[in-house]
Amino acid sequence: MTAQLAQPGEIASGSLYVEVQQFYARHMHLLDSGQADEWAQTFAEDGTFDAPTMPEPVRGRAAIAAGVAKATKERAAAGEIQRHWHGMVDVRPRPDGALDVRCYALVFSTFKGQESRLHRVCVCEDVLVRVDGRLMVSTRRVTRDDL
Amino acid sequence: MTAQLAQPGEIASGSLYVEVQQFYARHMHLLDSGQADEWAQTFAEDGTFDAPTMPEPVRGRAAIAAGVAKATKERAAAGEIQRHWHGMVDVRPRPDGALDVRCYALVFSTFKGQESRLHRVCVCEDVLVRVDGRLMVSTRRVTRDDL
Amino acid sequence: MTAQLAQPGEIASGSLYVEVQQFYARHMHLLDSGQADEWAQTFAEDGTFDAPTMPEPVRGRAAIAAGVAKATKERAAAGEIQRHWHGMVDVRPRPDGALDVRCYALVFSTFKGQESRLHRVCVCEDVLVRVDGRLMVSTRRVTRDDL
Repeated sequence: MTAQLAQPGEIASGSLYVEVQQFYARHMHLLDSGQADEWAQTFAEDGTFDAPTMPEPVRGRAAIAAGVAKATKERAAAGEIQRHWHGMVDVRPRPDGALDVRCYALVFSTFKGQESRLHRVCVCEDVLVRVDGRLMVSTRRVTRDDL
Repeated sequence: MTAQLAQPGEIASGSLYVEVQQFYARHMHLLDSGQADEWAQTFAEDGTFDAPTMPEPVRGRAAIAAGVAKATKERAAAGEIQRHWHGMVDVRPRPDGALDVRCYALVFSTFKGQESRLHRVCVCEDVLVRVDGRLMVSTRRVTRDDL
Repeated sequence: MTAQLAQPGEIASGSLYVEVQQFYARHMHLLDSGQADEWAQTFAEDGTFDAPTMPEPVRGRAAIAAGVAKATKERAAAGEIQRHWHGMVDVRPRPDGALDVRCYALVFSTFKGQESRLHRVCVCEDVLVRVDGRLMVSTRRVTRDDL
């Protein structure tokens, strides 16, 4: 998606924009706390996650949770903490209520006893949907600036 | 506090969430500008501040202001500017109106004439209260990822 | 502008504050995507941009677009991607509806195949105005912490 100026009708309301910010805060706290199953619940049942280091997109909560659980275990063993930050969040509602979100994503990494460092600078493109009143990630595509 | 999915009633309204964001912006501008007394006024009268490098939590505005004034003086003498960033802000209102806030906090450091650098990656857990219509920090607990 | 505590009447409404956040997101996506003309359209017709490396402020959309187009071309040739982040955004409405905004601004830089890095830590002071219903930058002044 190329960045564009806002078109009429493509502006999220204040409360909807805030809901997206709040959603991402808890979403990333769960991820960085290693709560793999709870994190996977913030994806739609058949949600997909596509990142440049994956040979193909991961599909479905079980697969998403399994991937995160594995990565969490490896980081814990290495004494590493990661923090994922979303920022510069652009929210564009679709007529059907789904949200196209494009934002920047930083990953910070810290090994116990060592200096914290910037690990990755990424762009995250999500489609968020509402299921039973809650926002969830339907599709996620992450690109890394260094690749 | 372990990260959790939102429970009913634990969602801040859009305007309240924005108020917290706006509060943190001014709060950190005051801190980084070295306005120790003004910064201390954004804590409740008996507010507390607990950080890993402190032997015990600092309590009350006078003590909070004194600590910041000292640190500000030392940084000024060294030609250092710090910038504190809060992000991924999760706001959970309590029934009594106080707010449990958990967010990530970055500290950037720049010495005149040198490259800016990431200094710290932290987690900040605040309880915010409303006093005379204004949000203030009642308790703050900061943890550093590197410790 | 020295950071100050909020004065009565100096608080942006929730929807206005969100509009500023949303504005900056698209504004920076346009900049970092190299869409110089579209980016210049987010400045007022006679908007000004003042940065420490400029001998004098740039004035007007054409000049602003030209400067960005040149920088974009140079970065593309060098294989560099930049990401501009605004954060800790303080919005103070003026009686006439213009907005005084003071925020922190980070610039991240990534060269293909290399580690991403923090490039700059800045403070950005904007005056935003509404033209035909849309927010635009009337004046921008950026200061760098390292200079």
